[in-house]
Amino acid sequence: MLLTVLELIGIAVFAASGAVAAVRARLDVFGVTVLALTTALGGGIIRDVLLGVHPPTSLRNWPYLLVAGGTGLIVFWFHPHVAKLRRSVLLLDAVGLGLFVTSGTTTALALGATPYAACLIGMTTGIGGGALRDLLLREIPLVLRREIYAVAALAGAIIVAVGHWIGLQKGLVALTGASIIITIRLIALWRKWNAPVARGLEG
Amino acid sequence: MLLTVLELIGIAVFAASGAVAAVRARLDVFGVTVLALTTALGGGIIRDVLLGVHPPTSLRNWPYLLVAGGTGLIVFWFHPHVAKLRRSVLLLDAVGLGLFVTSGTTTALALGATPYAACLIGMTTGIGGGALRDLLLREIPLVLRREIYAVAALAGAIIVAVGHWIGLQKGLVALTGASIIITIRLIALWRKWNAPVARGLEG
Amino acid sequence: MLLTVLELIGIAVFAASGAVAAVRARLDVFGVTVLALTTALGGGIIRDVLLGVHPPTSLRNWPYLLVAGGTGLIVFWFHPHVAKLRRSVLLLDAVGLGLFVTSGTTTALALGATPYAACLIGMTTGIGGGALRDLLLREIPLVLRREIYAVAALAGAIIVAVGHWIGLQKGLVALTGASIIITIRLIALWRKWNAPVARGLEG
Repeated sequence: MLLTVLELIGIAVFAASGAVAAVRARLDVFGVTVLALTTALGGGIIRDVLLGVHPPTSLRNWPYLLVAGGTGLIVFWFHPHVAKLRRSVLLLDAVGLGLFVTSGTTTALALGATPYAACLIGMTTGIGGGALRDLLLREIPLVLRREIYAVAALAGAIIVAVGHWIGLQKGLVALTGASIIITIRLIALWRKWNAPVARGLEG
Repeated sequence: MLLTVLELIGIAVFAASGAVAAVRARLDVFGVTVLALTTALGGGIIRDVLLGVHPPTSLRNWPYLLVAGGTGLIVFWFHPHVAKLRRSVLLLDAVGLGLFVTSGTTTALALGATPYAACLIGMTTGIGGGALRDLLLREIPLVLRREIYAVAALAGAIIVAVGHWIGLQKGLVALTGASIIITIRLIALWRKWNAPVARGLEG
Repeated sequence: MLLTVLELIGIAVFAASGAVAAVRARLDVFGVTVLALTTALGGGIIRDVLLGVHPPTSLRNWPYLLVAGGTGLIVFWFHPHVAKLRRSVLLLDAVGLGLFVTSGTTTALALGATPYAACLIGMTTGIGGGALRDLLLREIPLVLRREIYAVAALAGAIIVAVGHWIGLQKGLVALTGASIIITIRLIALWRKWNAPVARGLEG
């Protein structure tokens, strides 16, 4: 139950990151909606394909589509000033990454994957949606450009797997894992924005 | 039976769109063939992966490969003047979209997917091949740039799902759905080509 | 057994090709590692998804990840001069292509795919990892730009399928197929590098 709520919040956040990136790329309302859907549902569909869940969960339950598409439309109408869009994508992406890595790892464990496989599938779930978003907009994916993107995802996935192994309450474990991923990413972004920029690559 | 014929026509049309796009990108005969195959078979492979059909239909039946590869080669030898290639890709893409969305939706329904999931999988089948084509050529996919691309696909998928639900003849339903998608897309293209161009984005 | 060794060598070689391409694109150590993993494991994951192996082999066995990630890190620390990187990617890609096409075809046959399907899945296994590498770095994939890339893969896959059909020893067949693919690709690269360059496209 808590897991479903976390997953839906993650979908809304990733949908928003896709929609903001699409607005920034000057797509129209339809392109924005499609990119919001792809970003939000892509990671979960990859997870279900890897785990053999047919058809994927998000294609069978209408709340997933509704949350993702609705968020995309809301962002389209009320998006912030263009100057702030780049930061918004990165902030939303950090939150979505945290929620998706932990819900992906938890789902994989619940479906019988080993802790090792569950960590990798959880990481793929979290990274996949954002990578699709960047690929479709012809940008090199964040996971290749940001120093501690994959490491943050790995840390959160390991925390979830260890938490399950020692039998802690699942919702608590998922929240802890997500918080750590989000914190690591936000610190990395904050340090970058406040650091002297040598390489002309900042946010 | 009619469904298989529609699917093979859709494969030929999508293969032609991939081959024309590849000729336009100045690829050689091997690149043109590979892109024709990817565009033509990509959507169906994504559909089978989402539905859990292993191995995918088009990798088990040689007519699929033969039609796709043969069309690619024919286009390579007899392609129209370069100036007309952009329009050809868009026209062929419209026909392929119509045929693939409806055959994808029908296949998903036949394999027991709910109408809701079948619509989404049908749309993904139709959009997937063209998106792969554009991604491999480093273009932003049509579905993100063209206003009513996803909406046309959705309309056709819903018609097929409703037609099955009220028990109409399947071939007739598929043809109707495909015709509507193609008509919507052609009207959109025709209006764009004849409209005053404000944004420098026309065909 | 021999097959697993061939597959792990293929993973190391493809990981190196991904890492070198990432160094060339000036990614940092984390980006290099992620691209090494994606290139090395991508083809096998696509193969397992097409064959319905859940979760994919490389996400269940730690040696795969260890070899791929370790190779990526080694390349990052000891990579050759930047001027030679382009050739290194192409040479490593040729070896990886040979090993992956034949191990992919053999795996598909062992899991009950028909020879026809096994050839196509083996080709996809070999081409997939490199295509992901190029897509993530925003380059048009080698398979679309190099004349006899797909043809070399096809030749090796057919040799493996025919070898199995007439009952030859599997390891021998795989080695022969891989050697032929690698030889074809190296000859093609060597001729290109030594030929007068008309089109400004050489390595």
